[in-house]
Amino acid sequence: MTTARKYVLETLFQGTPKKSDLKIVEETLPAIKDGEFLAEAVWLSVDPYMRTLVNSSNIGNTMIGEQVAKIIESKNDDFKVGDYIAANFGWRTKTISNGDQVRKLDRSVYTDDKLSTAFGIMGMTGATAYLAFLDICVPKEGETLVITGAAGAVGSAVGQIAKIKGCRVVGFAGSDEKVEYLKGLGFDEAINYKTMTSLKEALDKACPKGIDMFFDNVGGEFYDTIIPQMNNSGRVVIVGYMSQYNSEKPDQGPRLNPSILAKELTIRGFFIYNWLPRWPEAFKAIGEWIDKGQLKYTESITEGFDNMFDAFAGLFTGKHIGKAAVKA
Amino acid sequence: MTTARKYVLETLFQGTPKKSDLKIVEETLPAIKDGEFLAEAVWLSVDPYMRTLVNSSNIGNTMIGEQVAKIIESKNDDFKVGDYIAANFGWRTKTISNGDQVRKLDRSVYTDDKLSTAFGIMGMTGATAYLAFLDICVPKEGETLVITGAAGAVGSAVGQIAKIKGCRVVGFAGSDEKVEYLKGLGFDEAINYKTMTSLKEALDKACPKGIDMFFDNVGGEFYDTIIPQMNNSGRVVIVGYMSQYNSEKPDQGPRLNPSILAKELTIRGFFIYNWLPRWPEAFKAIGEWIDKGQLKYTESITEGFDNMFDAFAGLFTGKHIGKAAVKA
Repeated sequence: MTTARKYVLETLFQGTPKKSDLKIVEETLPAIKDGEFLAEAVWLSVDPYMRTLVNSSNIGNTMIGEQVAKIIESKNDDFKVGDYIAANFGWRTKTISNGDQVRKLDRSVYTDDKLSTAFGIMGMTGATAYLAFLDICVPKEGETLVITGAAGAVGSAVGQIAKIKGCRVVGFAGSDEKVEYLKGLGFDEAINYKTMTSLKEALDKACPKGIDMFFDNVGGEFYDTIIPQMNNSGRVVIVGYMSQYNSEKPDQGPRLNPSILAKELTIRGFFIYNWLPRWPEAFKAIGEWIDKGQLKYTESITEGFDNMFDAFAGLFTGKHIGKAAVKA
Repeated sequence: MTTARKYVLETLFQGTPKKSDLKIVEETLPAIKDGEFLAEAVWLSVDPYMRTLVNSSNIGNTMIGEQVAKIIESKNDDFKVGDYIAANFGWRTKTISNGDQVRKLDRSVYTDDKLSTAFGIMGMTGATAYLAFLDICVPKEGETLVITGAAGAVGSAVGQIAKIKGCRVVGFAGSDEKVEYLKGLGFDEAINYKTMTSLKEALDKACPKGIDMFFDNVGGEFYDTIIPQMNNSGRVVIVGYMSQYNSEKPDQGPRLNPSILAKELTIRGFFIYNWLPRWPEAFKAIGEWIDKGQLKYTESITEGFDNMFDAFAGLFTGKHIGKAAVKA
């Protein structure tokens, strides 16, 4: 018998998540059975999507999310004590599993210093950047890409992949520090949307040949303004809509059907868990780019399971650069 | 020397087009030169897109549009007197052309009784129905398609093509007469949106397996309501946005990014003149379906060049069933 700690959803998020919406509780775990193992969280992920996937049916449940865990007890031959795994166990310190939907980490790739990349650049966020951008935006050399939420884990990787593919890359972010970070990654233009005077003018200036591709993490006024400024046959991938996550009333904006028709735009939604069979392809390419120094990644690390909510809340205040990760 | 009559745009349309926005004027045409011919309109087309393509730069110009014309004088060996053509000559009775962008009609296909189909089912509207539906909606047997503006020239053809492909077809139209027409064409469900109580309930009832494909001629509240009700991996083609054509202020609606992402929808605009190389493929298939009795078409004919504005205005009051055509 062992004790796990976990975050339970007490009340449904309304607007910006509050600390009191989640409660840390202790759970006594039974002995493991044949075929099972016990894993202890080493790294935990916080991601914006967690805000949107929680609904009233989740009240009383463990908060959802990915983690990297170490196997500390096992009656399953495929998962031995000392192995590391990535899994959607949620916000909890210890978990019993039979190995279903669990990804065992190849330690020659996920070395000690890279364990947290299993839910970052070599995990869900990297796979999202690679597959959503290449498959849906279908970049051609010389084309212009606009990225919102560009300093986030996904956006910063997309921009670098687009540079590898020979595109002009323009990113929006929410602080001068983030703008500097993006320029350091090779973005052609990085714009602090909090201090710019006009989004339309900023786009006109940063995109002299118009916009061919739009990788959207934010939605809202960015989406409203960028769609009408796109070039003919433009491609748009909707990966997030940060501007709406915490909004309490239905969000209204201009109906953009005239622009979509006249420019023959393609707009597509992307949800990474529908693309699992193609993750290995993404990791192979990303791993090679990292090894060659063509793709850099940053993590914003919060220490301690008890501080996990603060790391999560920081996603909505623009606190983090790159992938937000919690060290258990 | 001969005299043509033509409709000139006097004032830019504001809201619903007014008769006084256009003025019929006479134009004296010069003698034709070598390489030119003189053609006389036999049939003229009125289409909703004409409302949207006119802007302030068109004031003083001939109103845009397709016509079927007969060559009455020629100094061009490719276009002989007595030949019939389809061309974007606009709203005018006689035109001098050098044959550029002119489609000569094969009289074994476009027989006397089928001349007007050159801008209808065997012209732009048929090509739109075929290419926008098959290429963008990519129908699979057993899937459900919803069509707005279903009793129009394009919508009524799309529904029949979808039935040929084994789909469930649900169409919205604005009168009981149109609903009967659609049922007669084999639509599984046809709904009079002017008398239904709730669009959402109508969709729930008509689409028990959800909506896989949405062929949208209308936009507005239809679009707002249908997008969130679509199945995962749904395909949407925007061919028109009738609800916005005559609106004088920017149109607002809910931002639908959350549904587009969560369901991984694909939304694409379609503008038929970008697809010219593929028109012959469409006409071949459509011609065969017509010959086999699998595809029916209807025309709403207005007599007389002088009544052309009334035919055009009828597009926005729901007067026509099928393709609206004017007999010169």
